[in-house]
Amino acid sequence: MDKEPDVTRVRVEICGENYYIKGSASEEYIKQLAKYVDEKMKLLSELNPRLSRINLAVLAALNIADEYFKLKAEYEEFLEVFGEEKSK
Amino acid sequence: MDKEPDVTRVRVEICGENYYIKGSASEEYIKQLAKYVDEKMKLLSELNPRLSRINLAVLAALNIADEYFKLKAEYEEFLEVFGEEKSK
Repeated sequence: MDKEPDVTRVRVEICGENYYIKGSASEEYIKQLAKYVDEKMKLLSELNPRLSRINLAVLAALNIADEYFKLKAEYEEFLEVFGEEKSK
Repeated sequence: MDKEPDVTRVRVEICGENYYIKGSASEEYIKQLAKYVDEKMKLLSELNPRLSRINLAVLAALNIADEYFKLKAEYEEFLEVFGEEKSK
């Protein structure tokens, strides 16, 4: 019997390095997240070939935070408009 | 006259290191993004004190990608339900 039956362990490659990720999500989902981060870092590395791996990772995090914040603002705006429409 | 009048340059501190970020967004927004990434990395570092800075940054990026994907799924589901309601 497994000690942690709900924990998924996945090996993923991000920007040329292997990472072992543990999480409660599915293997497929964890791989999808890793692919997203990997693509961001590779794109940033193409645009700025002299950046170190640590700077690429921090920039990728900032980049994804930007996408998250923008989507959140859009969603909140939509909920407001939807709320107004519902109350008409 | 500035050469790049629409580019904001901001110095931010992320997990103890200084970064000079250039972008078309406002200084306030760039600082908000940096604070978000900084907090994620610090939290991950508290949970896993032996992780290197590069691993903390990659994990922070994965973490924020997870939040982004979940919000996107929620938003898309909402749009679907909203669309169905509108067509009734």
